[in-house]
Amino acid sequence: MRRWPEYVQIKEVGPRDGLQNEKKRVLTKDKITWINKLSESGISEIEYSSFVHPKWVPQLSDAHEVGKSIKRHPHVRYSALVPNMKGLELALDAGIDGASVFMSASESHNKNNINKSIAETYPVLKEVIVEAKAAGKHVTAYVSTVFDCPFEGSISPDQVVAVCDRLLEFGADDISLGDTLGTAVPSQVEALLDEVLRRYPKDKIIMHYHDTRGMAIANIMTSLEYGVTRFDSSIGGLGGCPYAPGAAGNVATNDILYLLHGLGIKTGIDEKKVDEAALYIQKKLGKTLPSKSLAYASAQQ
Amino acid sequence: MRRWPEYVQIKEVGPRDGLQNEKKRVLTKDKITWINKLSESGISEIEYSSFVHPKWVPQLSDAHEVGKSIKRHPHVRYSALVPNMKGLELALDAGIDGASVFMSASESHNKNNINKSIAETYPVLKEVIVEAKAAGKHVTAYVSTVFDCPFEGSISPDQVVAVCDRLLEFGADDISLGDTLGTAVPSQVEALLDEVLRRYPKDKIIMHYHDTRGMAIANIMTSLEYGVTRFDSSIGGLGGCPYAPGAAGNVATNDILYLLHGLGIKTGIDEKKVDEAALYIQKKLGKTLPSKSLAYASAQQ
Repeated sequence: MRRWPEYVQIKEVGPRDGLQNEKKRVLTKDKITWINKLSESGISEIEYSSFVHPKWVPQLSDAHEVGKSIKRHPHVRYSALVPNMKGLELALDAGIDGASVFMSASESHNKNNINKSIAETYPVLKEVIVEAKAAGKHVTAYVSTVFDCPFEGSISPDQVVAVCDRLLEFGADDISLGDTLGTAVPSQVEALLDEVLRRYPKDKIIMHYHDTRGMAIANIMTSLEYGVTRFDSSIGGLGGCPYAPGAAGNVATNDILYLLHGLGIKTGIDEKKVDEAALYIQKKLGKTLPSKSLAYASAQQ
Repeated sequence: MRRWPEYVQIKEVGPRDGLQNEKKRVLTKDKITWINKLSESGISEIEYSSFVHPKWVPQLSDAHEVGKSIKRHPHVRYSALVPNMKGLELALDAGIDGASVFMSASESHNKNNINKSIAETYPVLKEVIVEAKAAGKHVTAYVSTVFDCPFEGSISPDQVVAVCDRLLEFGADDISLGDTLGTAVPSQVEALLDEVLRRYPKDKIIMHYHDTRGMAIANIMTSLEYGVTRFDSSIGGLGGCPYAPGAAGNVATNDILYLLHGLGIKTGIDEKKVDEAALYIQKKLGKTLPSKSLAYASAQQ
């Protein structure tokens, strides 16, 4: 029998990565109620919103109000996506515990997403990381399209670690590696983790899977076999794929918890409370979320 | 890097295990068109219907007519579920290439499903197996609830191999081990395969996963690591769970093909043709099938 880690840490990204891909606007007061429910589940980190310009993500234009209004649970780190110094100022004023910066391992995806080359992005993120650290905040750096890019195709592990090297050098506490397209299969995960874990300590690496092709849970299994102990997930599988309307979003928190607890891995999270919070937002969005574990749990009720 | 098998054989069970859990009746002529599409995909076996009494599965009451009317592709084995001698006679008359018998590894699930104890089931299946083999047909024996039973909970590998021993002794060519509830996680798969593959040659073992909790692809990965090369799947993830209305059914052929081809494993199957056949039946059923790979493929069109 193989060995798994004893404890795995989940970061809930539904209120940010999930919601930013949902068309239907959720009321600010409902987001607050929902995040407060999530806070009670035992989860240790919630990425609750994004401070990118409201023009880009209107769904999250209430980031400041949400940050000011949620009830802070003492055991939860509340973080938010921050694209630049302007966003960081607003986020600090809203009282974030953690700032998440982001860029892509793919030159053309970065250009398309941030409208800058990778070289032009570094100084912007460096300034944000340095300032956030100076303000005593935790900083996570998201690196997206670490396996496949919608414009360039396959991305080599060398490209990924080149970006990680710089972000860690700027002072990021950890790196979240994103299968943004949700196209990776376990052999690709192995090829990347062979490089990444040779280079960085395990606890600095977070795997961030999308379930576009239904491969996320298998990719998480492979990551666990490599000793990875940190994952991002989205409640109910909330969200979607900007390149394929109607396709699935982030891996569902409900599904990853079913896997981890089934393997006997501790997370500190109460699955039932996560299901309740998922059913709450499912009702507000008026659509069935893609999590299979959630569908099962709600059919049983 | 781990090694995977070079070639994996998929049996399409959508027209039987998938459809039997769908409420909306599909017209006989549409089933025939659909199975003919599947036959063109390169798949090597299709379980096209069931010869259980029509009272139990009205959806499949046209098994004989379907069997007589489908266009037989020379490279496809057409099999059907057969509960007893009466069913076998009808199935032979309809021209099956293979007969599938079935029972449960759990005493109470067997009683609930077949209305017989395990001991009472053996002579019935023995007679069918012997007759089907005498008629020159391939015989697969399904063993259900090999991990968890809705009535008894956890099923031990010992219980499973006790049933497999008898079925192979009666002359079954191979055994399909079913995660009927779709609740297993990879550690359970390991515990079972440790026992099963110590006892029987790999090519006699087929793994049959349901995706109720979203674990099927991860369980297939684990099975591949154990060297399993045969799987059952259902196009589009057609079907459902009788114990949780609305929950997912068999693992989707589309998703398993995405995994296998992504790992560089050959199947001989054309994914595009499988997607087309899945979209055909999705339209006839008037509902979105659960396969994430299919959702992605159809959103891209």
